[in-house]
Amino acid sequence: MFVSQYRCRFRKVGSALTQNLVIGIDAGGTEIKAGLLLGGDILNLRRFPTEREYGPDHAVKQILHAAASMHEEFPDAQAIALVVPGVVDSKNGIAEYSENILWKNVPFGPELHRVTGLPWGFGHDARLAGLAEATYGAGKGYSDSFFLAIGTGIAGAMIVNGELIDNPYGGEIGHLDVDSGYMCACGVIGCLESIATSPSIYKLYAELSGRSEVPVGGSHEVLERAKVGDLHAQEAWRIATEAIGQAIAAYVSILAPDLVVLGGGVANAGEDLIKPIEAHLDSRLTFQKRPQITITTLGDTAGMIGAGILANNTLNT
Amino acid sequence: MFVSQYRCRFRKVGSALTQNLVIGIDAGGTEIKAGLLLGGDILNLRRFPTEREYGPDHAVKQILHAAASMHEEFPDAQAIALVVPGVVDSKNGIAEYSENILWKNVPFGPELHRVTGLPWGFGHDARLAGLAEATYGAGKGYSDSFFLAIGTGIAGAMIVNGELIDNPYGGEIGHLDVDSGYMCACGVIGCLESIATSPSIYKLYAELSGRSEVPVGGSHEVLERAKVGDLHAQEAWRIATEAIGQAIAAYVSILAPDLVVLGGGVANAGEDLIKPIEAHLDSRLTFQKRPQITITTLGDTAGMIGAGILANNTLNT
Repeated sequence: MFVSQYRCRFRKVGSALTQNLVIGIDAGGTEIKAGLLLGGDILNLRRFPTEREYGPDHAVKQILHAAASMHEEFPDAQAIALVVPGVVDSKNGIAEYSENILWKNVPFGPELHRVTGLPWGFGHDARLAGLAEATYGAGKGYSDSFFLAIGTGIAGAMIVNGELIDNPYGGEIGHLDVDSGYMCACGVIGCLESIATSPSIYKLYAELSGRSEVPVGGSHEVLERAKVGDLHAQEAWRIATEAIGQAIAAYVSILAPDLVVLGGGVANAGEDLIKPIEAHLDSRLTFQKRPQITITTLGDTAGMIGAGILANNTLNT
Repeated sequence: MFVSQYRCRFRKVGSALTQNLVIGIDAGGTEIKAGLLLGGDILNLRRFPTEREYGPDHAVKQILHAAASMHEEFPDAQAIALVVPGVVDSKNGIAEYSENILWKNVPFGPELHRVTGLPWGFGHDARLAGLAEATYGAGKGYSDSFFLAIGTGIAGAMIVNGELIDNPYGGEIGHLDVDSGYMCACGVIGCLESIATSPSIYKLYAELSGRSEVPVGGSHEVLERAKVGDLHAQEAWRIATEAIGQAIAAYVSILAPDLVVLGGGVANAGEDLIKPIEAHLDSRLTFQKRPQITITTLGDTAGMIGAGILANNTLNT
C-alpha cells in the first residue's frame, strides 16, 4: 500500500521542485473538477457532477469515477491527488467528515491508489487552494498571506513565512464570532458564516426586505439589486462585508499578513467586496501592518491546482 | 560587528542543542530581570529598576548597565540576549518602537556587544516568553500552543507545529475588536486591551462602581473585592474575562491550538481566570478542537529564559 509522504504540517510554498505531469482533483458539493496539470498549468480540465443529493456514498463513487477516467484518458500522469472540504486526515488520506457532503471516514488515499495504481496525495480544498494561490496565483511572492474562500461556506488558508499551516482544525474563520445575531449551522449564534456566505447574504436580504418567498438566491442577486438602488440589498451587503472585514481584522491582529486573497463565489463581486473590507480595516487598524486585499487569480481552479501540487510532491520526497 | 544569526521567522521549540552558560535579560517598563542561565535553569537572578519615568534614554542606559554588570559578575557566560516589548527587528537587534517605554530605533544588539564583547541575541518579550513556556514550561510537549500574556498590556505568542511564529507585527491580539465600547490607547474603540489589562479591569470597576477617585489599582484588587461580594467588582471581572475568552475563541477558530498558556499579572488569578474562559469556550465551540487552558509555570521569568534561548542559539548556529 502506498502511504502519503507528508508528515509535516507545514507545506513549503513555491519550492523549486521538478514539475511532473499529474492529475489534480477538487471535489466540491456541486461539482468535481479534475485536471491534467504541469505545475500551475492546466493542460486539460474535466468537470463531473458530485450529485450529493444521492447521498455521500454516491458522491464518493463519482469522485473515484472521475479519478479512474482521468487516469484512463491521461495514462502519462505520474501521480494523483484529491482535495475535499471538511475535516481531513491528509497523512492517511481519510476524509473524516464533511457537513457539506455528509461523508464520514472515507479512505480516499488508498481508494485513489486502488483505482489508478498511482502515488496519491490528499488534502483540504481551501487550504490547498490557498497554497496554489501562494505558489502560482495572487499570493505569489508574498511570504505571509491569507486566502479567504467565501462561497456556500467560509474557510481560510494561512500562509506564514512561506509555508501553509496545514492544521486540520485551523482556518475555521467562518466560525469566528462576529456577533451576527443569527444562528449558524454549527449550532451557536454569531458566526461569520451565519451572515456572510453567499446563501446567508441572500437570506439576510430576504429577511430585511420582508420577502416571504423561500430564500434560494445568492450574494450575486443581492449585489445586483443593491446596485440598482434596493436599500434592503444595500443594507444586507453592508452588514455582510462589514462582518468579513471584522474577520480579516481579527486575522491581521494575530498573524499580520501582507496580503489577503479573496476567493469563492462571493469574491466575484471584486471591488464591491474589496472596498468595504478596506474601509473596515482603515477604521480598525492604527499601528498594525495594513494588508493588501485582492481577488484570486486562479479562480475556481485554485483547489484543483493545489491538488496538483500535492500530487507532484509525492514524486519529489 | 557581530550580526545576529537568525534569518528565519520560525524558531524551533525544544531543539536538542548543547546548553551553554548564557545571560538572558528581560527589560519591562518597571523592571529589568537579568539571569545567568543554563537551558531552563536560572543559576542567578538580578533585578534592576527600569526607571522609565526618567525617559527612554535613561531606560536604555539601565538595560546596558544591567548587561555590563552581569557580564562582569559572570565572566564565564558565553553569550547574551535581550528581550523587550514593542516592535522589534530581531535580525538587526533594533528596538523599533515601544508605546510603553517610548524609545525609537535603539540598536540594542550592537550595544550589547559593545558593552560585553559577547555574541548577542535580541527579541520580543512576549514571543520569547511563549517560546520559553513551550520549551521548558507549561507548553512543553505541545506542538500547537498559544501563550497569552495579560498584564499592563496584552500580547500573544503563537507556537505552530512546534515552532514560534516570530512575526514582528503578529500576536497583537490585545487589539482584537471585542466590542468593548472603550477607547484603546492605540486610537480606536473596542480593543481587548481597553477592557482586560490589569489597569483597564480596575478602571472598568471604578467606573461601574461610580468611584470618583483616580483609578490606580490593578486586576488583583478587583478580584479581591469580587470575592468578598462587591457586585461591581464581580461585573468588571465578568466583562473582562468574557472578553479574554472571546479573544481566545477567535484564536482557536484560526489556529486551533491544543493548549493556551496564560501569563502576565492578571494570570495570577489562576482558576478565577481559567473558569470563565472555559465557560466562554464551552458556549462558543461546537465541532472545533477545545484547547486546554492553563497558567504559566515559568511566571515572570519566562521572558528572561526566552532571552537565554536566544543567547544559546547564537552559539549553535
